[in-house]
Amino acid sequence: MNYKIIRYIVGWVLNFEAACLLLPLLCAAVYGEKELIAFALCSLICAVCGAVLTIKKPKNKAMYSKEGYVIVALSWFVISLFGCIPFMLSGAIPRFINALFETVSGFTTTGASILNDVESLPRSVLFWRSFTHWIGGMGVLVFLVAILPLSGGSNLYLIKAESPGPSVNKLVPKVRSTAKILYGFYIMLTVLEVVFLLAGGMSIFDSLTTSFGTAGTGGLGIKNDSIASFTPYSQWVVAAFMMLFGIDFSVYYLLIVKHITGVLRSEEFKVYIGIVLTAIVLLCVNCHSYFSNFGDLLRHTAFQTTSLISTTGYGTVDFDKWPEFSKTILLMLMFSGACAGSTGGGIKVSRLVILFKSIVKEIKIAAMPKSTHKITMNGKTVEHETVRAINVFMMAYLFIAVSSLLLISIDGHGFTTNFTAVIASLNNIGPGFADVGPTKNFAFYSTFSKIVLIFDMLAGRLEIFPMLVLFSPYTWRK
Amino acid sequence: MNYKIIRYIVGWVLNFEAACLLLPLLCAAVYGEKELIAFALCSLICAVCGAVLTIKKPKNKAMYSKEGYVIVALSWFVISLFGCIPFMLSGAIPRFINALFETVSGFTTTGASILNDVESLPRSVLFWRSFTHWIGGMGVLVFLVAILPLSGGSNLYLIKAESPGPSVNKLVPKVRSTAKILYGFYIMLTVLEVVFLLAGGMSIFDSLTTSFGTAGTGGLGIKNDSIASFTPYSQWVVAAFMMLFGIDFSVYYLLIVKHITGVLRSEEFKVYIGIVLTAIVLLCVNCHSYFSNFGDLLRHTAFQTTSLISTTGYGTVDFDKWPEFSKTILLMLMFSGACAGSTGGGIKVSRLVILFKSIVKEIKIAAMPKSTHKITMNGKTVEHETVRAINVFMMAYLFIAVSSLLLISIDGHGFTTNFTAVIASLNNIGPGFADVGPTKNFAFYSTFSKIVLIFDMLAGRLEIFPMLVLFSPYTWRK
Repeated sequence: MNYKIIRYIVGWVLNFEAACLLLPLLCAAVYGEKELIAFALCSLICAVCGAVLTIKKPKNKAMYSKEGYVIVALSWFVISLFGCIPFMLSGAIPRFINALFETVSGFTTTGASILNDVESLPRSVLFWRSFTHWIGGMGVLVFLVAILPLSGGSNLYLIKAESPGPSVNKLVPKVRSTAKILYGFYIMLTVLEVVFLLAGGMSIFDSLTTSFGTAGTGGLGIKNDSIASFTPYSQWVVAAFMMLFGIDFSVYYLLIVKHITGVLRSEEFKVYIGIVLTAIVLLCVNCHSYFSNFGDLLRHTAFQTTSLISTTGYGTVDFDKWPEFSKTILLMLMFSGACAGSTGGGIKVSRLVILFKSIVKEIKIAAMPKSTHKITMNGKTVEHETVRAINVFMMAYLFIAVSSLLLISIDGHGFTTNFTAVIASLNNIGPGFADVGPTKNFAFYSTFSKIVLIFDMLAGRLEIFPMLVLFSPYTWRK
Repeated sequence: MNYKIIRYIVGWVLNFEAACLLLPLLCAAVYGEKELIAFALCSLICAVCGAVLTIKKPKNKAMYSKEGYVIVALSWFVISLFGCIPFMLSGAIPRFINALFETVSGFTTTGASILNDVESLPRSVLFWRSFTHWIGGMGVLVFLVAILPLSGGSNLYLIKAESPGPSVNKLVPKVRSTAKILYGFYIMLTVLEVVFLLAGGMSIFDSLTTSFGTAGTGGLGIKNDSIASFTPYSQWVVAAFMMLFGIDFSVYYLLIVKHITGVLRSEEFKVYIGIVLTAIVLLCVNCHSYFSNFGDLLRHTAFQTTSLISTTGYGTVDFDKWPEFSKTILLMLMFSGACAGSTGGGIKVSRLVILFKSIVKEIKIAAMPKSTHKITMNGKTVEHETVRAINVFMMAYLFIAVSSLLLISIDGHGFTTNFTAVIASLNNIGPGFADVGPTKNFAFYSTFSKIVLIFDMLAGRLEIFPMLVLFSPYTWRK
């Protein structure tokens, strides 16, 4: 284990966080809020710790997948631990476990909250809360890879460990350039959403924070009723961008380089759009009696569909009151999640497509044993190793989900609450049903359950293995 | 596709059912019940249809895995369709869909019922209801393989398609002899339970029907309160036998041939016992305030544990009223299910052990990339093909569970009810929580939902692939 490179990169993560904290600091300055001190202090702490860790460059920069996993998991712990300091210093969330829960929920783009009344918070705190979504959305290490002069091999291991999806889609041969392109699109799309929201008459503060939450597919809102009090125009804008941020960013790259056939060949993209449209139609049919006119019906169903499949978690209505069939559709969207290579969470559409094809292949083998059967995706054969990795991911996902469900059930809350709390955390969505429904929050869970859910949020964002490798005794054996 | 061999064997299944129906007929004669006519008529119908289908022996007896799957799936449909006739003719369950649900629940050893008041039924009908569990427990085709002079290859494909578990454990080189040994143990253990129950002062009728339900790990009871009104002694006997019928029958074979090290090497057996003991301890700790003395506490928790892990579904208390942690433990037992090669349902302990080991292997690969890592079970390397088959099984299981959940949610019942109804059907357990809890039944579901759950019960008993192959268009393509 190359401890020095781990120390060095985690140090850079802290430097990066120190820089990020300057934005809410600026926000506090603009609005003349006393929380300026909290952000200044936290930024200083990060900068000092970061400087100590990075002052000595490691001579041996060799890194393998083990170091990649450990660095990524550790970085996300560290950034969350330091990131919750402003919440505590400002008095917004005095208890450590709650502040940590809210921060992890922010960075992992979950959007589950322990706060009852967000509107009472200072603007700079709300800004930081939303900005953590934006930082976590595309990834901390992806950003560092884009700017730090690390070797190509290290870059790949870091990106592999942090990026969602069954395989890393390199847009261009160099990993570093890929990271730059990804952040380019990310910034561009965020700016576009801000512009659209401003055009609808929204304030600059509301536009920015809402866009941060959309871009990272996070879902922590700045209003107590999430997005419900926004104008229909703004709701449509947010819905559209939630869908866009759930798409594999390589699709945008293909569009930019005018490789339209490449876009049309992307099965994941087509299935994703197919699921979104099917869900909206089914919800419209099932919920039509809940709305007085078709415009409202379409807007709310489209909003909830894009919000949950992209694992954002913004809400315009209390969908926990919808009929059971609609709720089950929404639950399935939560499981599915968005496309690999997007900022969304969940199992990912491409994994489900490949798993479905592996079942069909098995039936074909039984029915037509003399033919050869292969799984293809986007016109190419899916490698055996990819299928195996997806299967192991799914099993680890299930084991963690079931263990978490058991552990938080000790608190004694109902099954629907516990089940959807785990799913909403592990898939980085935010709201679930029943007591963790869209109008409720996670404050009532015990400290122990919150620790379990914090683990789930991190495991979900990092797609499980970095967390398992970090906590495995095999990793630390000599 | 060899249609003639399919016709021939399905014909023998009907002959077998005609013979089986003579037992409830005898029961009706003993108690002087008019239902005798219903059983006589149904037996005659089965015998005539069976005779027509088997009168001409097929010249070409060649059979492959495709025919094996189709025969098994078709046989279970046919035996259920004919088996529900006595329920309708006797007027006990007049509606076809309800009679079919009850019969499929019987043969698949699920134990989910649509009846409110079973005590009002004639004894011969109750006898048939319980006897379907016994027939389905060890398997219809396993029985035919034991008695019919088929070729060795055919035997293997039939046993493979019908037997639960990731791989078929041949006790002796000949499949036919294996089938005979299995039925030998099955009959022996059943007789042993009957003797133990009779020794406790139970009537011969109650002892027989209760033992049928235990042996098949079915769970349809003869009392409205399931096993609650039985004496503590009888409850302990049933609990012990539920655990015994959940053990891989090859363990008994190893015991008989005095191969004790073989028993001790069986990881599945050890994990199964470990899960049972752990669950009992946790339930005792969590539920101690629900019972006035330790004897009751231990008996009820042990009973519910063995009942659910063996997927029997008998009940001595309304465990839906237990604290959430205990209910979550029980739900996990439902998922786990019993050992492969037992009469129990569920995912099976051996599958879970292998899946868990595949996750550990993946972590080891990441942490120690230079070493070689293999999955072993009972001291032997698990073949890659077995791991692959388990993964495909799990995915097919999940897809069917999620699709079923969506389809039955159209009825509008609550999430806990729907979720546990699907799990209780797919894992062949019987009772779930909430509206399908141990004191409730499945009558309120719509015809459509009942069809979905009937499919789930059959898919669960046959471990999914026979059903998928039967309904796949690839199977029927020229």
